[in-house]
Amino acid sequence: MTQLLRARQGEITAEILTVAGQEGIAPEELGQLVARGLVVIPANIRHSNLSPRGIGARLRTKVNANIGTSADYPDIAKELDKLRAALAAGADAVMDLSTGGDLEAVRQRVMAACAVPVGTVPVYQAMVQAQEERGSMVEMTADDLFAVIRRQVEDGVDFITVHCGVTLEAVGRLQKQGRLTDIVSRGGAFLAGWMLFHEQENPLYTQYDRLLEIVREYDVTLSLGDGMRPGCLADATDRAQVQELVILGELVDAAREAGVQVMVEGPGHVPLDQVEANVQLEKSLCRQAPFYVLGPIVTDVAPGYDHLTSAIGGALAAMAGADFLCYVTPAEHLGLPNAADVQEGVVAARIAAHAADVAKGLPGAKEWDRAMAVARKSLDWEEQIRLAIDPQKARQYRESHNPEAKGKACSMCGTYCAMDVVAAYLGKPADRC
Amino acid sequence: MTQLLRARQGEITAEILTVAGQEGIAPEELGQLVARGLVVIPANIRHSNLSPRGIGARLRTKVNANIGTSADYPDIAKELDKLRAALAAGADAVMDLSTGGDLEAVRQRVMAACAVPVGTVPVYQAMVQAQEERGSMVEMTADDLFAVIRRQVEDGVDFITVHCGVTLEAVGRLQKQGRLTDIVSRGGAFLAGWMLFHEQENPLYTQYDRLLEIVREYDVTLSLGDGMRPGCLADATDRAQVQELVILGELVDAAREAGVQVMVEGPGHVPLDQVEANVQLEKSLCRQAPFYVLGPIVTDVAPGYDHLTSAIGGALAAMAGADFLCYVTPAEHLGLPNAADVQEGVVAARIAAHAADVAKGLPGAKEWDRAMAVARKSLDWEEQIRLAIDPQKARQYRESHNPEAKGKACSMCGTYCAMDVVAAYLGKPADRC
Repeated sequence: MTQLLRARQGEITAEILTVAGQEGIAPEELGQLVARGLVVIPANIRHSNLSPRGIGARLRTKVNANIGTSADYPDIAKELDKLRAALAAGADAVMDLSTGGDLEAVRQRVMAACAVPVGTVPVYQAMVQAQEERGSMVEMTADDLFAVIRRQVEDGVDFITVHCGVTLEAVGRLQKQGRLTDIVSRGGAFLAGWMLFHEQENPLYTQYDRLLEIVREYDVTLSLGDGMRPGCLADATDRAQVQELVILGELVDAAREAGVQVMVEGPGHVPLDQVEANVQLEKSLCRQAPFYVLGPIVTDVAPGYDHLTSAIGGALAAMAGADFLCYVTPAEHLGLPNAADVQEGVVAARIAAHAADVAKGLPGAKEWDRAMAVARKSLDWEEQIRLAIDPQKARQYRESHNPEAKGKACSMCGTYCAMDVVAAYLGKPADRC
Repeated sequence: MTQLLRARQGEITAEILTVAGQEGIAPEELGQLVARGLVVIPANIRHSNLSPRGIGARLRTKVNANIGTSADYPDIAKELDKLRAALAAGADAVMDLSTGGDLEAVRQRVMAACAVPVGTVPVYQAMVQAQEERGSMVEMTADDLFAVIRRQVEDGVDFITVHCGVTLEAVGRLQKQGRLTDIVSRGGAFLAGWMLFHEQENPLYTQYDRLLEIVREYDVTLSLGDGMRPGCLADATDRAQVQELVILGELVDAAREAGVQVMVEGPGHVPLDQVEANVQLEKSLCRQAPFYVLGPIVTDVAPGYDHLTSAIGGALAAMAGADFLCYVTPAEHLGLPNAADVQEGVVAARIAAHAADVAKGLPGAKEWDRAMAVARKSLDWEEQIRLAIDPQKARQYRESHNPEAKGKACSMCGTYCAMDVVAAYLGKPADRC
């Protein structure tokens, strides 16, 4: 029985209770949101060390960190470092996207060390295995893919990205239209290539019921992947992307009917003026299913700063209703991120999420900012550092940018600190705000 | 004769011609925008080494970098390092906000080394001099302040921030309402304190005509400062801030009548959902005068990352019509920025500005992104680095995050690079985008 099915029967599950407590929302209200599919709680019944998180309407915007090996960097220890960095920085979920080394071992080590929901993209492992065992990626069979999915959900993975909407119809629309960067989703590109090579429909689409059955057994949440997501601003919101989203909307209906929790993934590279429309489109086509966006990054020209370009897009997307932000690190488009990149990426996405939560009036969000303002006003540096989203970074700047710890004004204004001037000459208006 | 007066007479000045060339706009169209006050070209007739920039409607969003000494860091050489960092990173203007050491020398050295418009906040020097020469900041006289203004504009400064709207009326509204962080503008706090101490109106308001006369002589652009800008999200868009903006609107009219170029400064700390309204308000109250915003930063809780919080707010503000972004560095709220902070701050603000320019459909903006997309698609790394907004950072990531320069896919996906998979299995749809 999934959280969705149990909530529909009016049950307040342990997971709903936990999440309601985290969010400061009544368990009954949360239960109704889960029952309607507006909130998902990815919680594989086998993920024993999990502290569940809710994703969706009325809840704090969540942040996911992608980690994972590649052929060039297959080291498990490095992945566990990245996992620790992600968790320490406050990630709400982690995806293991490994494609190098011992994939099973990495996943199991990550699961064991991770108390937040873990996601995967099973087709990666299927691709890698086909390459290694059958000599070519396209030699993967549908049964291979479903075997991998089963193995991963049996390991306790809480949500899986499945590119079920990369259908012949969607690929046909892409080819007819043409694109600057074609397909930039690894899973999407592989599946499209597989389909064209074999002249067959996507097995994740034709055997969607088989997929639903597997994931329902463990209450794994489906994350319907956006294989057609734009890889540059010029490709954003085009017919291929929207065609896939229309199909994903239908698949959301089918998942909910089957009692399976489901969310929908979105772009990607999106011009700033199209971000809001992309969120509205998903909410409309997919009946308000939780929306999980990758970035979006709002310009293509800033490699080395894509944590920042995605924080701009992510903040706007979350304000418009996106529920779950997949971080982008400064290494994006240039190489596999290291632990420092992971840390920067998580903080940047958390800033975007929090700015949106304040804008949406989420209960409790603006109180954090207010507490910081009070600490600033009183020049209470220890409290400012304690309240900082990244206390270590704040302390490091404070210590390196001031000649000696003075405990009062900072080196920017010194004697001419506005806070001091106001206190001395203006008196202190009542704090009635 | 100012650019404004000459444009009103239909003259196409050398500065209008230069800016029109930079922006790819017809000189006649630009001349009309200048004549209507919708564009300013800060160009002091004494700034001999200036390459002018236009700020306002239909033009690329511009970025300003604040530099300047403080009592703790009075070293001129360090300021010149910061100036070089700002210019190398692509700042369109630089403000010298020095309050430590030999202020005259710093300003003159900055002017001599700076080919983009230079701005100052003269009241800082007046405060410092009063403190040093008269024993207290409040002992400054109105004549002292105007003497500093004259000295600075004679040095060739292209625009000056003057907090003319910090009037007894605005301060009274602030006191009546109460605020969490009172006044956080150094100039605003000082002037308000001075006014209350002397029980006198702001001389920049009562002697506004005197100010206009001085700046008109050298064609210095007024930047009407926002002394009441919010210092935290909780104070945003409050009565004190809006009262000042109403007054600034009247002062814009008076400046334009006197033939003086004028722009208006804005916040500050603003929740994401109020950013657009703040821009619309300025455009409405100030008859479309160019809007120069500081950030805005969209959360108070991220010291160490305020280049990022301000990039979020700046992108949204610029998309809504803000014309000029004052950068915020990662050191903001913690200490005086160093050259590395300046570099990060300028790039972050430029990313925000460019994302907005793409969104606004500014001619030429999206072509940059398109060129980058083409380079990505063809895995042309040298071209990607060349096109990057910060080529040095992109190269450094590329080199440090890949085991060896392979010239092909990067270490993120390696064998499973979507670009490669598409090329191998999917074929290449026509580039008809």
